Amino acid sequence: MQVAPLPGQLMAAEIAEQPAVLAGLLSEGSGAIAALRARIAAFRPRFVLIAARGTSDHAALYAKYLVEVRLQLPAGLVSPSTLTLYGSRPDLSNVLFLAISQSGGSPDLVGSVEAARSCGAMTVAVTNNPSSALVAAAAHHVDIRAGRELAVAATKTYTAELLALYLLLCGGDAAAVPEAADRTLAGAPLAYAAAERYRSVQRLVTVARGFSYPTAREAALKVMETCYLSAQAFSGADLLHGPFGMIGPELPVIAVVTPGVGGTAMQPVLARLEAAGADLLHVGAESGGLPVAWAGVAEELRPVLEILPLQQLAWRLALDRGGDPDRPRGLSKVTRTW
Amino acid sequence: MQVAPLPGQLMAAEIAEQPAVLAGLLSEGSGAIAALRARIAAFRPRFVLIAARGTSDHAALYAKYLVEVRLQLPAGLVSPSTLTLYGSRPDLSNVLFLAISQSGGSPDLVGSVEAARSCGAMTVAVTNNPSSALVAAAAHHVDIRAGRELAVAATKTYTAELLALYLLLCGGDAAAVPEAADRTLAGAPLAYAAAERYRSVQRLVTVARGFSYPTAREAALKVMETCYLSAQAFSGADLLHGPFGMIGPELPVIAVVTPGVGGTAMQPVLARLEAAGADLLHVGAESGGLPVAWAGVAEELRPVLEILPLQQLAWRLALDRGGDPDRPRGLSKVTRTW
Repeated sequence: MQVAPLPGQLMAAEIAEQPAVLAGLLSEGSGAIAALRARIAAFRPRFVLIAARGTSDHAALYAKYLVEVRLQLPAGLVSPSTLTLYGSRPDLSNVLFLAISQSGGSPDLVGSVEAARSCGAMTVAVTNNPSSALVAAAAHHVDIRAGRELAVAATKTYTAELLALYLLLCGGDAAAVPEAADRTLAGAPLAYAAAERYRSVQRLVTVARGFSYPTAREAALKVMETCYLSAQAFSGADLLHGPFGMIGPELPVIAVVTPGVGGTAMQPVLARLEAAGADLLHVGAESGGLPVAWAGVAEELRPVLEILPLQQLAWRLALDRGGDPDRPRGLSKVTRTW
Repeated sequence: MQVAPLPGQLMAAEIAEQPAVLAGLLSEGSGAIAALRARIAAFRPRFVLIAARGTSDHAALYAKYLVEVRLQLPAGLVSPSTLTLYGSRPDLSNVLFLAISQSGGSPDLVGSVEAARSCGAMTVAVTNNPSSALVAAAAHHVDIRAGRELAVAATKTYTAELLALYLLLCGGDAAAVPEAADRTLAGAPLAYAAAERYRSVQRLVTVARGFSYPTAREAALKVMETCYLSAQAFSGADLLHGPFGMIGPELPVIAVVTPGVGGTAMQPVLARLEAAGADLLHVGAESGGLPVAWAGVAEELRPVLEILPLQQLAWRLALDRGGDPDRPRGLSKVTRTW
């Protein structure tokens, strides 16, 4: 007889599994990824297009920063609808087209890969499902090897996507990441205590700059999908435009400020937030807030770590608010969009 | 002696001015824009990068759709920080680089244009200020000719940016737009009545697909900056991912569903929203909700009209909630970010 799982049990297990998943990807998956990286280098793309939806869209944003900053190539996030709904057929010769999807099952993503391939692009599917339609549609694929993900809210597939994209696009040394992930997850009691602050709010804001901006986006999504509150992510620069009108003591703000270029650029934003009396929680700062074990890990790789306490916070907050983070209302594991 | 303006007087005047601004741009500005369009065609860009912040970022998203669908070229929205903070210097030969800004004054945008120009791009500044630093930095410029904008919340500069970008990238017939804008603005009483529904909410969601997605984004920004509520915009496809967990009777949703490819693709999203009991307001539908006078206007140009009732709604809602939409807290007209 099967025992019904406790609320949030699946998501908790998958959060905890991440150091092992990341270590497994490094030991078992990095050889194949390095081989594909060499093929991409030989292809010499003139630029890179990236398509994704949902959580994977934040991995796509991360990949865009890697391409722009590390490969020094221009990059664009594809609006899948222009290839599928509007039937655009641009010349994509010498273009690298990455499609990122946990399930590899969404028809519009599959359609955009088919369109990109027919337009001449080198297509690469980055998924957790090597037998998916997306992998069949693409010329190449990267297996993120996260193991089956059962919780509706993606956690281990997100960090595995980030690490796989780092290996694919940069190929740098990531050996320190699994242990740093382990140390970061050990801060769980602080994340759970922080969840208390948001027990009865309806909305919050997340903010970051540079490589940490995808972390702010993904953290907001975790909170929306598991806790049903309106969580909005902003780049620090964009927040200072119109959205700053919302800022005040009644609107909690979570700022991802891991040291580095992005964290430094966040300092004037933090000063403005403090002056406006915002209820501020720091993630990854030198001290205080929710710690991230970033020491010894390159700035480009820290997003793999930064999201961990925010996953824990979202999980705890969902339970505190009486929800089940494993079964958010209205959602299923594979979202099919056209 | 100068008489102090009434709350919202500036924004109301600038909303009302839009048909005249659009007509003026067509009659006085379209010749220069057509000349630049011919230069761009001769340049034969291999792809297009677009940089902007705030409201102009939604004009940038609109331009991205135009480039992908109408020019059949790949396009990317630039993360200005990769060029400025991270010092990326990609090869941008044969690349068209558009920078869009009402004021033309934000240092990070100026820096990104300088960087793009030094990397070989054809640079075009699209602004409302021909004597701005952005125009000085770019090789070419488009004057959107909206006249001085005094309200902090951009209205007429947004629709003028959209029309200028349409003329620059497509060059199609836009003669019907000013009168259609006039007819759309005449629906003001319906927009004001709709504002009643949101008088005491803390948050809402806007949603659309295709060309109307920038409208959803800009509408959310207007509501954030003038009414201080958390307004989140989603593409219909993305909403069905994690964010759908938020959807329920307590969270109002504004759907932009002007007939066309995007509106058709919204139908399954509307069905899901209705099934979830969402409090739904349609904008631009065949009947009901807030009307948009889209008849006789190409789908690509309808975003110029769709935003109008949503500007009126934001303005009325700000007043109803006791604010002054001309002077949102924490904001100034020119946002300087680095």
